[in-house]
This record gives sequence, structure tokens and C-alpha cells, in this order.
Amino acid sequence: MTSAFDAATAVRPTGPSSYAVVIDPTWSIGGVPNGGYTLALLTRAALAGAGHPDPLVVSGHFTRPASFGPAEVRVESLKSGRRTSTVRASLYQDDKLRLEALISAGTLPEPADEPSPVTYTGRPRPAMPGPDECAANDKGLFEVALLGVVEERIDPATVPFSRVDGEIGPRPTGEPTVRGWLRLADGADPDPLFLTLAVDAMPPTVFNLGSFGWAPTVELTVVLRGRPAPGWLALEAGTHLVSGGWFDEEVALWDSAGHLVAQSRQLAIAGAG
Amino acid sequence: MTSAFDAATAVRPTGPSSYAVVIDPTWSIGGVPNGGYTLALLTRAALAGAGHPDPLVVSGHFTRPASFGPAEVRVESLKSGRRTSTVRASLYQDDKLRLEALISAGTLPEPADEPSPVTYTGRPRPAMPGPDECAANDKGLFEVALLGVVEERIDPATVPFSRVDGEIGPRPTGEPTVRGWLRLADGADPDPLFLTLAVDAMPPTVFNLGSFGWAPTVELTVVLRGRPAPGWLALEAGTHLVSGGWFDEEVALWDSAGHLVAQSRQLAIAGAG
Repeated sequence: MTSAFDAATAVRPTGPSSYAVVIDPTWSIGGVPNGGYTLALLTRAALAGAGHPDPLVVSGHFTRPASFGPAEVRVESLKSGRRTSTVRASLYQDDKLRLEALISAGTLPEPADEPSPVTYTGRPRPAMPGPDECAANDKGLFEVALLGVVEERIDPATVPFSRVDGEIGPRPTGEPTVRGWLRLADGADPDPLFLTLAVDAMPPTVFNLGSFGWAPTVELTVVLRGRPAPGWLALEAGTHLVSGGWFDEEVALWDSAGHLVAQSRQLAIAGAG
Repeated sequence: MTSAFDAATAVRPTGPSSYAVVIDPTWSIGGVPNGGYTLALLTRAALAGAGHPDPLVVSGHFTRPASFGPAEVRVESLKSGRRTSTVRASLYQDDKLRLEALISAGTLPEPADEPSPVTYTGRPRPAMPGPDECAANDKGLFEVALLGVVEERIDPATVPFSRVDGEIGPRPTGEPTVRGWLRLADGADPDPLFLTLAVDAMPPTVFNLGSFGWAPTVELTVVLRGRPAPGWLALEAGTHLVSGGWFDEEVALWDSAGHLVAQSRQLAIAGAG
């Protein structure tokens, strides 16, 4: 059975270097396709001919908002090596570039692999309540269709919302940190491609500073570190600086076995309306 | 007077979307052009026609080693907006792509700017001895020509080397952290372009894990956060995970006034020989 995520990121070759895709309105926040979702779409197309199974690093620059419906992904192989390949992927609608990404691919380590000569683990999964002790993030301040396909739980200490009589309202904590858990709602196991979406699926950290406006992404780079074990992903998002209207959001993801599986940083615009 | 850095990153237009550059052997480590230096070269070319003064995010994927001498940078404008522009820049030698980068440009905040409605500073400059109390990094384990043009001081607690009778040898601390200070040796003030080089100029963090081999970069993204004040830059580099032969290196830079001016992450190969 095809998972909802696999169906929403399906790519159909239409030529030696182009793919037809459909941007699914379910994977959206506030009526706009989720940036991590469109990045996953591009990555799927890039991997189709990369010669390596996994994304290692995906760097996407968002040039114009994408719309729901058909789109074209154009790919170009930049390097095809023994250990890594690099592909450029570009998302077009109406012949206008919406998102361009550079994707380096390779083979991610698996927990069962022999340790390399040098190994180091310096960022353990943060202490937080388990998924069942966390608050369900099932309704946003505005329409978040994504929450129908991605199940989210937020550490109560970092929830930027209040709930009164079932109505949701702003309640920033004052600290730009969000911790929680997420998984695909249909029970499908996470794969590296889902990680590129997952880093961008939670409420923005700046909600907790009271900046509840639209927070469009300028750039998002995701570094993949391992194939995730089945089950919940743990997420920690933080921000180091909000200045001149720009903010960084840094995310780390751990799989259910506690392994660090992805790291990301994005630069976004705070409170763009 | 032109600084050594400006001279080494000069770009000469040779057409509407191409520039001639020369990769200067001085800006190298172990006989190979420094990755941050080649990224600065591409960024200089990208900014020439970007319509915005500053790099905001530079994401470079390193496809093949570059050589010293003449090279060509091809640029393509991907977006030209009011607030940001995006340019693709590609470095060619012998018609082979060596490095491709996506560069989003805009206007960086300056210390004198009015604060934005939402501001937050969550990562102060780390406590460490001042430049004069730090160890001069003026000689590497292998030939580091870069140290002739970039002056480096390393916090003694994080120096991966020993010095006996003037001879330098390995002495890893066991923690993949490097802190220190750096500036241009000719006294030129740092600019945002120099920050894209500076994040990649110190000894790799994995030296402190005993991995002294070559550490080629797969990808390096630099997020610029402010125009730096004149004087020393403070640097902190750390690593969260070394696994399967891959490691991340995360760097933050502060200017002499203590403002966070750049954040970067790279994925690199540990001990590639």
C-alpha cells in the first residue's frame, strides 16, 4: 500500500531531465504548500537518477510561492562520484521558478552498521515528556491542513497556544524553542525523505516570541545523518537571533531509538503579515 | 588600497553572465584552495548583479576539487525581488564544475539600525581568553598558506596541537570544539564576504577527536546575520555527530562588538586520507 506521503511526493518522468509532480493541498499551512513538503518533492526527483539511495544534504532557496496542482521538476546532474552525487533540482509552475535546490546524495549510516574508526555523539535527544504526555497539535491559529496527515505532539513547556473552551489563542512562552514529537498519521514509517519535511512541520519558534504572522522561508538546508528507525520522531527547534526582520530556525530530529537523524537551519522572515 | 582579500576575490565580467576569476594559491590549506575562499569568490560574482548589497544565505555543494589559477564563474539570476534576490553561481575549470552555490541576497542589519518589532539574542559570544591570551595558529600540521593572510588565535583549551622545540604535533583534546579569533593579516576590516571564508578557516573540529586526515567538505551553508564591526572576529566551532565517516561542523561568528554575524554548518568526510 502506498503511504499518503509517498503518494503526495510521487514523481513521473516526462523526459530525460524532467518530472511531472502534483502539489497536494493537504500538505499545506495557511493555504500555502509547506516548504519542507516541496523540498521533499524536489529531493524525490533528484534521487530518481542520482545513483545513490539517500539524500545527504538538501539546500533549497525559495524564490516564489508555489500553488497547488501540477508542477514540473527539472533536474541536472552536477556530479556523479563513487561516494557522493550532486543534483540540481528546480520546481517550475507556469514557467516560473518557485524553488531551486542542490542535493548531494550518498549512503546514510544505519544503526546496524559497524562503527567507523572515529565516532562521536554530542547531541542526545533532549529530555521531554513522551508523546502521550505532550499536547496534541491538531489545530493551528490558522488553517493547517498538514495536521491531517502529520500527527504532532508538543512539549507542554513549549506550546505557543492557549486553549479555552476548545478555542485556540496565542500564548507565547517568551523563549523561541519548540520541542515535540511527530509521525505520519497513516502509520507509515519515516524515511530520509520525510525528514526533509519534518524539520519544517512544527509551529515556527518565533510564535513563542509573540510573532504570529506569516514566516516565509528564504532558505532551508537539511543535513541527513541516518536512516530513521520506525516510530515517533523527536524534534527540537530553536532560534539564536531575530534581527532586522530575519530569524534563524535550527532543528534537530532523533528517531525512536534516540539517534540523531537530521539537522537543519532555515533563514526566514519574521512577521511578514 | 585594495586588501589582499579583495584582490584574491576579484571578478572580471567576460559576458552578461560570466566572470573570469583567479584562484590564488595563498588562500589554501594543504595545497588545496580553501572551500570558504572559493565560496567567497562565487558570492562576489553573484552579488555583482544581484541588486542587493549583502549575501543573506550562501549554500555551496563542492563537486570536484578546484585548482590554482584561472577559472570561470557562471551566474544565473533566479529571482529579483524587493526584499531578496537569488542567484545561482557555478565555478568551472576546464569546463568541469568544481562548486555550485545558491546565493540569496538582501540587506543585512547594522548595529545602528532601529530595532525591529521583534528582536531576540539567544547566543552571546562564548567566554574565552582574548586574542592576546590565545595561542597563535601560525603553523599547521601540513602546509597552510592561508595562515599567511588570515591571522588566527585559538583558545588554549581547544588547541588540537602540541608544540615541542618549535615542532608541531597532534594533541587532540577529545572534544570536537574549536574556539578562537581571526582577522585579515593585512589589517583590512571584515566584510560579509570575508565571513563566508572565515567560517571555514580554522582547524577542523575533528582534529580534536584525533582525526587529522583530510576532511573534504561536501556542502557548506553560511547564513549571514549582520555587517561586522571592524576588528577581531570571534569563532566557535562544534560538532554534534560523527557517524559513518560523515561529520557536521557548526560555526558561529561574532564581531568585535559581540554581535552574532554569521552561522554555518557543513557536512564533511572525516579522515579521508
